Amino acid sequence: MKILVVNVNTTDAMTSLIGARAASAAAKGTEIVPLTPFFGAESVEGNFESYLAAVAVMDRVVAYREKCGDDFHAVILAGFGEHGREGLQELLDVPVLDITEAAAHVACLVGRTYSVITTLDRTVPLIEGRLLLAGLHTQCASVRASGLSVLELDKSPDLAIDSIVTQATHAVELDGAEVIILGCGGMTGLDEAVREATSVPVVDGVAAAVKLAESLVSLGLSTSKVRTYATPRPKQLRGWPLR
Amino acid sequence: MKILVVNVNTTDAMTSLIGARAASAAAKGTEIVPLTPFFGAESVEGNFESYLAAVAVMDRVVAYREKCGDDFHAVILAGFGEHGREGLQELLDVPVLDITEAAAHVACLVGRTYSVITTLDRTVPLIEGRLLLAGLHTQCASVRASGLSVLELDKSPDLAIDSIVTQATHAVELDGAEVIILGCGGMTGLDEAVREATSVPVVDGVAAAVKLAESLVSLGLSTSKVRTYATPRPKQLRGWPLR
Amino acid sequence: MKILVVNVNTTDAMTSLIGARAASAAAKGTEIVPLTPFFGAESVEGNFESYLAAVAVMDRVVAYREKCGDDFHAVILAGFGEHGREGLQELLDVPVLDITEAAAHVACLVGRTYSVITTLDRTVPLIEGRLLLAGLHTQCASVRASGLSVLELDKSPDLAIDSIVTQATHAVELDGAEVIILGCGGMTGLDEAVREATSVPVVDGVAAAVKLAESLVSLGLSTSKVRTYATPRPKQLRGWPLR
Amino acid sequence: MKILVVNVNTTDAMTSLIGARAASAAAKGTEIVPLTPFFGAESVEGNFESYLAAVAVMDRVVAYREKCGDDFHAVILAGFGEHGREGLQELLDVPVLDITEAAAHVACLVGRTYSVITTLDRTVPLIEGRLLLAGLHTQCASVRASGLSVLELDKSPDLAIDSIVTQATHAVELDGAEVIILGCGGMTGLDEAVREATSVPVVDGVAAAVKLAESLVSLGLSTSKVRTYATPRPKQLRGWPLR
Amino acid sequence: MKILVVNVNTTDAMTSLIGARAASAAAKGTEIVPLTPFFGAESVEGNFESYLAAVAVMDRVVAYREKCGDDFHAVILAGFGEHGREGLQELLDVPVLDITEAAAHVACLVGRTYSVITTLDRTVPLIEGRLLLAGLHTQCASVRASGLSVLELDKSPDLAIDSIVTQATHAVELDGAEVIILGCGGMTGLDEAVREATSVPVVDGVAAAVKLAESLVSLGLSTSKVRTYATPRPKQLRGWPLR
Amino acid sequence: MKILVVNVNTTDAMTSLIGARAASAAAKGTEIVPLTPFFGAESVEGNFESYLAAVAVMDRVVAYREKCGDDFHAVILAGFGEHGREGLQELLDVPVLDITEAAAHVACLVGRTYSVITTLDRTVPLIEGRLLLAGLHTQCASVRASGLSVLELDKSPDLAIDSIVTQATHAVELDGAEVIILGCGGMTGLDEAVREATSVPVVDGVAAAVKLAESLVSLGLSTSKVRTYATPRPKQLRGWPLR
Repeated sequence: MKILVVNVNTTDAMTSLIGARAASAAAKGTEIVPLTPFFGAESVEGNFESYLAAVAVMDRVVAYREKCGDDFHAVILAGFGEHGREGLQELLDVPVLDITEAAAHVACLVGRTYSVITTLDRTVPLIEGRLLLAGLHTQCASVRASGLSVLELDKSPDLAIDSIVTQATHAVELDGAEVIILGCGGMTGLDEAVREATSVPVVDGVAAAVKLAESLVSLGLSTSKVRTYATPRPKQLRGWPLR
Repeated sequence: MKILVVNVNTTDAMTSLIGARAASAAAKGTEIVPLTPFFGAESVEGNFESYLAAVAVMDRVVAYREKCGDDFHAVILAGFGEHGREGLQELLDVPVLDITEAAAHVACLVGRTYSVITTLDRTVPLIEGRLLLAGLHTQCASVRASGLSVLELDKSPDLAIDSIVTQATHAVELDGAEVIILGCGGMTGLDEAVREATSVPVVDGVAAAVKLAESLVSLGLSTSKVRTYATPRPKQLRGWPLR
Repeated sequence: MKILVVNVNTTDAMTSLIGARAASAAAKGTEIVPLTPFFGAESVEGNFESYLAAVAVMDRVVAYREKCGDDFHAVILAGFGEHGREGLQELLDVPVLDITEAAAHVACLVGRTYSVITTLDRTVPLIEGRLLLAGLHTQCASVRASGLSVLELDKSPDLAIDSIVTQATHAVELDGAEVIILGCGGMTGLDEAVREATSVPVVDGVAAAVKLAESLVSLGLSTSKVRTYATPRPKQLRGWPLR
Repeated sequence: MKILVVNVNTTDAMTSLIGARAASAAAKGTEIVPLTPFFGAESVEGNFESYLAAVAVMDRVVAYREKCGDDFHAVILAGFGEHGREGLQELLDVPVLDITEAAAHVACLVGRTYSVITTLDRTVPLIEGRLLLAGLHTQCASVRASGLSVLELDKSPDLAIDSIVTQATHAVELDGAEVIILGCGGMTGLDEAVREATSVPVVDGVAAAVKLAESLVSLGLSTSKVRTYATPRPKQLRGWPLR
Repeated sequence: MKILVVNVNTTDAMTSLIGARAASAAAKGTEIVPLTPFFGAESVEGNFESYLAAVAVMDRVVAYREKCGDDFHAVILAGFGEHGREGLQELLDVPVLDITEAAAHVACLVGRTYSVITTLDRTVPLIEGRLLLAGLHTQCASVRASGLSVLELDKSPDLAIDSIVTQATHAVELDGAEVIILGCGGMTGLDEAVREATSVPVVDGVAAAVKLAESLVSLGLSTSKVRTYATPRPKQLRGWPLR
Repeated sequence: MKILVVNVNTTDAMTSLIGARAASAAAKGTEIVPLTPFFGAESVEGNFESYLAAVAVMDRVVAYREKCGDDFHAVILAGFGEHGREGLQELLDVPVLDITEAAAHVACLVGRTYSVITTLDRTVPLIEGRLLLAGLHTQCASVRASGLSVLELDKSPDLAIDSIVTQATHAVELDGAEVIILGCGGMTGLDEAVREATSVPVVDGVAAAVKLAESLVSLGLSTSKVRTYATPRPKQLRGWPLR
């Protein structure tokens, strides 16, 4: 089984990090193909950058398909709280997983409520919006910001863990969260440390998405094509793909 | 990996059916242990029977653990729309999956909305209630009854498929459903036939629960014990276990 | 008029307490019959115990009916936030009242919002779930835990009043509650003391349920049998009743 | 115990009808005092008339109090879906019941869902709005109009029963209602006939309100005065009371 | 274009203030006609006073129409969180704007969430209720009380600004508000000062309503008459108009 | 005042149509600048195309600004139910209006409920999602598809009116809509014909957005920059702008 794991920003180091985490979660026999978009922001922390990422991810997957064929079995959109999943679902026949929703679905299986710990305060509304659209908001106790930007996470992992643990503890004690979700692709791999500090289950969206992707493929299920995610109608497109 | 799959009624044939479906979905290396409760109704179609089943399932798992040890890695409550999952989660340290919620989570990954096709009209409110409690109701387009009882499903598979397909078609065309969930443990195995007839993804809760259970075990995640599902406090219990 | 008031735990002293409160609220001519389940936990503070109580209460009422006849006019499930009301409604033709919902309905008649003060934090989600299922959550300002277990309430009434008053005051001042509900059968009788301390109306679920039961009987109304609470279909039951 | 039952329109015959129904539901020892407003519409079927009624009812109760003293124990606002209850609650220290909410609370005690059958289509939104504000909408399956105006109900009781039964049957069969509420003060007394025709419980708001009022008085509960329904601050009022 | 701007209380100074603010927001060619009701309270801070205002405003507009003709193009109900808009909509063919809803609609155009800063705590539930009925509550982060009564605002503008700014700052920092709405007709004109202090957009309901009224007139749109706001049916009215 | 009105597709004729409608709604002194994106689909009827449009619109506005300066006062995103408004709000300091939300806000001012009539069934979920995110779904009675694609609307205006009128009539009679919104930029200008046929107010999103844009500018209000729509942080962007 081959799964494309597409980063939403243009920072290769983060693609590597995400790819490694995906690989570590993957079953034997699952091949992970990490991809970096050809254009966009070095980190995604707002709507402008997120919309750009939505298109860049679709563009990147289409480029992959043109060059390497469609021998992949699932695609993972590895940006937390980002736009774009619905578009990929229209373009592809294989399952598309988004790490935000994958994490929330898994969290609901191990606790009554969950909180998301994300980066900057400005990304909180995006995450809340994506959870609302997916119908996953009702069990969400809170979305809290650690105050560190995506790129700072990478530079200062210890500081990152500290600030995430602080917010995670508030989420459990003040908001009633029973599970913590790491709300940024760049936090991937920190789950173990946060779990030890908080003693509640900690869900990493990349790992969750890999297991759910494998599950869907194994169940023979893929995106319904009857309405929302129907294949785009044949029509004139100007300037697509973009790169 | 060993997964206990517990039927909610006392009909052994149904336990076998469910066990076989679970086994067919399981990964290589996953052992499925089907269990039938020691007491309860021959089929569960209402609150009285469902509450009885909730306790009978907990009783059965406890009996298994006493006799065979706790070498199992997950438990699946194989009744659709039934009470009891929360109690099992308190009693156990391993993940507990309920086929209702497992099916709904998986359905949300492959479509924007889903409908459940169940047996008798009287079970519709139970299912709606369980989805509401789990926060899975927002993407539920409808819960429709086929009009066949649980035991009739078993006796007349062709009739069952017909009535399920009829309701599934209404769900897709009238209610806007993009995915169909088979809303009864006794419908397990009919997914392929219904999928062919309706051309939308059809989710079987037993198979879905097996893959999600395997996923949780693989991710090293189990039920949060901080609040809702904390282990029962040590106290005097009269008459437990019941059998 | 005869009303069965069924405790959810096996502590006889608590049955007596509840029975006395019910009797003090009852109209002249209303006979209160307090009942203790034959099995279950000495106090109910979680899902496992609550599911067990649900079945034990049904079992107890059926035993009463078999022994003493069905000359009773209503049944009150005297556990706060517990499972089981729906099952009793299926089994019986007379009205079934649950003290959680009775308290919430009455609270809504005397204030725009209410808060529930319960025992341990772990029971908060059960209460919230029951209110949600009954559609009574929208006016609920908060469910707060006093931190005392059910049995501690009984042992230290002064401490109990203190801790309940503290949380009730927070509910009124911080959460906007206009009415306080005593969220545990074991708190029954403390309403006057809490009212004096907080100067908002305080609702005792047992008393509320008695008056509502009398009201329904007087109005000639009982549970609708068309769908959710239809009488169980005749079928093979193994091991029922349990004692 | 003395209960004021205030009609919302100026049609004396309807006041008599409502008063008689209230008296028939009242316990021995409860005195019902029916009152007709001094101004307003002959029937209330819209917002303009309903706001006018809200003020006219307050005005009428104040006039009663000035003339006859405040020896009454509760007040019932006997208009279905009308404005005004909150104002009365501010002005009075005794419990105030509104037949809309009384009916809905009682309906929820005997069924999972209820439908309201009202008069003209134009009054449906008012009723929905009142239920929403009171947090009673979640269990409301539908509000259906019989198509007969308030005054036509009075003139043609047989036609009224027919049209109400038709809509009640649709509510049960199409909307999933388990209980029917008669959604107009002028329908009072038709409950028995509709119950016979539909075989589901039928709630008359006037009767329900009387029993709930008696219950509150017996429980020693009245409107919370801490916030929403606090007594109006002393201030200059021009032209009040109006008559 | 002529717009009637109707105060909800009987304090002429406040009518002048509101009229001046409306005039300053109006386009060239828009004439503002400020009106004071003939009866009611000197300030409106609760349901009793608000219901009285609802009728007094309708009465005042009807009196204006009888005396001056119906050459006006829109009516603005200039009380924040008050009852009555729906009744005016039934009585009139021209657009009716309520400053509560006008402010909320405009706030949603310039931010994801808004908070309302009002006067006394007791008016918070009225405002929340009006926003709920209008479907404008989902983006409302909070309704906060400054603690100053309507008339105190007028007497101590500096104190008013201080207390409003304090609550507005809390709303932005603690509740996540992105826009502030001045929640009292008497606060009109303070928007600039509050904006400077908080650096978020501040919406004055009177100004907002004037621009929306002009917009509707320019678009040729007025109240739909098909159902909720249909013209009252011809019927006998006793004592109307009241003055 | 200068307002940029940006089409979401690459069909110049549709840009002209939208521009003309905007100009006809604009106040004297308001200049409308219609813009066509440099890339994207000839019509937007799904998520892939809509995400592409979101980026293409941002790209087009940035290009305009680079070439012509930032002397414009507001921007209108003239695609119904499309992604992208939030990104534009981050990039710009002037107000950004989206025709979906503008239409819904205006509809709520003239009726209690509204329905949207759109093109193909596949676009219904996008519109519902955008209304949900903006908190405008609660008064939405339905979103109905006429069955005609965007480009067919243009080719067969008579057929378009027929199919829109048919669905609008269903919306009013079956769904309880009191106002109709034309749910496609390409339907702009058909409002008068539909209004005549249905006798309810019909809102054209382009015209509504123009009036709301003028209102915001006149009120001195623009997008709040404190959180959701804060200006993007300075960071490395690869490949932007795209053309």
